[in-house]
Amino acid sequence: MRGTDKTLKAETMGKKAPKPIDLARKPRGFPDKREALIHAEQAMIERITGVYRRWGFEGLDTGAFEYTDALGKFLPDEDRPNAGVFALQDDDDQWMSLRYDLTAPLARFAAENWQTLAKPFRRYAAGPVWRNEKPGPGRFREFLQCDADSVGAAGSHADAEMIAMAAEAMRAAGAADGEFAIRVNTRQLLNAVLDGVGAASAEVRLTILRALDKLDKFGTSGVADLLGAGRMDESGDFTKGAGLDVDGVKRVLAFAEAGRETRSDTLEALGQAVGTSESAQTGLAELKAISRALEAFAAPEADVVFDPSVVRGLEYYTGPVFEAELLKETVDEDGRTVRIGSVGGGGRYDDLVARFTGQKVPATGFSVGISRLAAAFAISGEIRALNGPVVVLNLDREDPSEALRLASELRRAGLRAEAYMGSSGMRPQMKYADRRGAPAVVMVGEDELAKGVVTIKDLKEGARQAAAIESNQEYREARPGQFEAPRAELVARVRAIVEADQ
Amino acid sequence: MRGTDKTLKAETMGKKAPKPIDLARKPRGFPDKREALIHAEQAMIERITGVYRRWGFEGLDTGAFEYTDALGKFLPDEDRPNAGVFALQDDDDQWMSLRYDLTAPLARFAAENWQTLAKPFRRYAAGPVWRNEKPGPGRFREFLQCDADSVGAAGSHADAEMIAMAAEAMRAAGAADGEFAIRVNTRQLLNAVLDGVGAASAEVRLTILRALDKLDKFGTSGVADLLGAGRMDESGDFTKGAGLDVDGVKRVLAFAEAGRETRSDTLEALGQAVGTSESAQTGLAELKAISRALEAFAAPEADVVFDPSVVRGLEYYTGPVFEAELLKETVDEDGRTVRIGSVGGGGRYDDLVARFTGQKVPATGFSVGISRLAAAFAISGEIRALNGPVVVLNLDREDPSEALRLASELRRAGLRAEAYMGSSGMRPQMKYADRRGAPAVVMVGEDELAKGVVTIKDLKEGARQAAAIESNQEYREARPGQFEAPRAELVARVRAIVEADQ
Repeated sequence: MRGTDKTLKAETMGKKAPKPIDLARKPRGFPDKREALIHAEQAMIERITGVYRRWGFEGLDTGAFEYTDALGKFLPDEDRPNAGVFALQDDDDQWMSLRYDLTAPLARFAAENWQTLAKPFRRYAAGPVWRNEKPGPGRFREFLQCDADSVGAAGSHADAEMIAMAAEAMRAAGAADGEFAIRVNTRQLLNAVLDGVGAASAEVRLTILRALDKLDKFGTSGVADLLGAGRMDESGDFTKGAGLDVDGVKRVLAFAEAGRETRSDTLEALGQAVGTSESAQTGLAELKAISRALEAFAAPEADVVFDPSVVRGLEYYTGPVFEAELLKETVDEDGRTVRIGSVGGGGRYDDLVARFTGQKVPATGFSVGISRLAAAFAISGEIRALNGPVVVLNLDREDPSEALRLASELRRAGLRAEAYMGSSGMRPQMKYADRRGAPAVVMVGEDELAKGVVTIKDLKEGARQAAAIESNQEYREARPGQFEAPRAELVARVRAIVEADQ
Repeated sequence: MRGTDKTLKAETMGKKAPKPIDLARKPRGFPDKREALIHAEQAMIERITGVYRRWGFEGLDTGAFEYTDALGKFLPDEDRPNAGVFALQDDDDQWMSLRYDLTAPLARFAAENWQTLAKPFRRYAAGPVWRNEKPGPGRFREFLQCDADSVGAAGSHADAEMIAMAAEAMRAAGAADGEFAIRVNTRQLLNAVLDGVGAASAEVRLTILRALDKLDKFGTSGVADLLGAGRMDESGDFTKGAGLDVDGVKRVLAFAEAGRETRSDTLEALGQAVGTSESAQTGLAELKAISRALEAFAAPEADVVFDPSVVRGLEYYTGPVFEAELLKETVDEDGRTVRIGSVGGGGRYDDLVARFTGQKVPATGFSVGISRLAAAFAISGEIRALNGPVVVLNLDREDPSEALRLASELRRAGLRAEAYMGSSGMRPQMKYADRRGAPAVVMVGEDELAKGVVTIKDLKEGARQAAAIESNQEYREARPGQFEAPRAELVARVRAIVEADQ
């Protein structure tokens, strides 16, 4: 029988074959997550889906796999066809891919069930997505997204709803006044500006948009270089520019820098900067309608700003686009100042469902990166570590029943508790309790059994008292934080320690 | 600008290219889940991980992928090497597989981090697993499991903990007295019986164990046939037997049917049936220690039974094994009586971590199939459908602001509410609200605006009243469930409807 000291030692010391090869390794980019992080991410998902639900969205979960041809070439954040997915062939030779976002499966689902869905179809989803990219620090190949989308909703007020809801999601996640902003733009205005400076080729248009996206990073003069001949960075590397003439550069910059304090001031400045083309008028009308709807939603000026330098997935979005940005700086474990920046975004994508149905179906949505958001609030210490279980030491190796009974009794009283299940002695058991973050340990040896008592040690109080004790001998005599209690008082005394600890 | 009737119609009617090919399809075996099912599964996971946490286990999430060689050949439920997984090659040509259970990744994690873990390492996990098998009705290629394991815990009381916790998990899931049983056996006793009847070859041993597994289904005489020459079923198909002689058949059956009302009576009956070999003594000692620990945990006799006919994953388990079974019969949507049967199981697997470390590390665990369990309780109607959002109709297509404001106001009061975001008229909007399960709709047209009121319709009350109305004309005049309220009373009147509805 297992459980005696001898067999145990033979087993755990392992007199068997030597370690064969190093199998105990995992593919890069797939993180193992311990309890505190899981809890932080789960709490974030609950808060944000709580917002989505309150706004009337309903849950939908799709499977991990889609047919590769159904996923298509749309990656919202990158302009790369089909790259970056995990794909394999099914037993009927059809290619399947793990979803790289939650929107493409939604488009497939909506198209497949369009006839029977209540329309507009408003769904939220939360779950992992997979991207087959080079992993790096903080850059994973599996991460959590949490989305809401309205499929079959054409009006700009549906975009405004996404934007106002994104702001509410940021607040639910824990961001306060001034700690975040939803930055809004529209493809129509970007198109108007690109047309206005005569940028015809896809390559030049892309170069201009990429330059706009760098306004935060390189400032006006750096972006001016990128719009013109090109820019040399400090290391001497040269990036070729879009080749606009001086007037063109001025016009694009006037547009990109038209952001003002309030949404209505920005609208006015944009009116000057974008010209009178059809897409200019459409874009301005979109932003005006969004502005009006945001007022109806009572979205504060600081929460939602119009920002003409916002550029997102070009092949993907067809109208308003927006980005959720954390502005506050946080301090990480090593004391470094960290600014997380963009934690999510979205916009209107009227062409995605049309891939399936041949019909244009208007759609708009928002996606938030849970891992980044949870990391931001974990970094700033806003998510507390969880309390460990009360550990009942097992001092009778032949018959652990008394320890099992005590742990059982604590659990029945609603406390988190376990009897020590390993095979080690007293000191390792204490060390175990300490490493599990136990608020207290409970001990019952033969003495205690005979006297009808239990020994309880308050580990936090013990540590506080121990800090003032100088010698080992004094420590052993004082037994800081440790006391005897009548067996009948077990639950009450342990509960008092656990509650004081919270 | 979008949002006017004309552009909308053109867009949603889709005058564009005809539907190209049928892309809107998904791979078989990956279910799309709607809100009620998601909620049921989520609630089940929360209840069961709540139990695991209270017993002191801590959360661990590993990634979807493991290296194929790290996953190894162990599938707990089936004796098939390496088959049935989804695998692909990483960019460095190494093979990766999606996890087929939560235990193999745990073994990899424990081996990889063994030096730094608090031991025993007690973790719970919940999440999807993937099996590349032929899908069928109720048989998916992606499903949810929820596990707890103790790695580094050798004593039989650690197995008893799993068993008692499994019983508590069943109760937390909603099973009452007599509606479930945890059926316990041990590999050691099975080995003793196999040795006792001289079954030497792996094939014969497997045939005997498979026959035992059929006791529920075929009864004593059917199993006797399978242990002897073989069994012919009603269709005339013949299954070859294990070829035991009459005495061998009797001895195996005496063992398999040694189950009694109480655990102690079963132990006594088993003592007669299994002989005196070393594995017989080891097995009996294991069950006795489990029995003693179950008493310490105060596990009711009916919750945990010793059942010698329990057989599980032969290459995998090394000691006690057990199965969680739902006994209650439920009635499905079509009125058929359904018995779900096994919803989970577990046991001791002392060899799994040794694959990585070369050292034997004792381990024991429990896994429950969330989808099956949720289905069981959804079938019996114990998981209620969720309430839909209050829908504010959008009657002013030019400026939806008032509808947005009303929905916003309801949400700020904590109610689930949305303004209608589609582009259809009054009747489709009412139909939409109905299909979303809205408890109420709110309407504000020009009349209401001028009078400072809102029109509210209680949809459930309306349906009740409408059932008594005979003519269409009468219906239109009576407007059942519909009333006007002062604008300032919006929240209070809607809340009253929502709360009455719950």
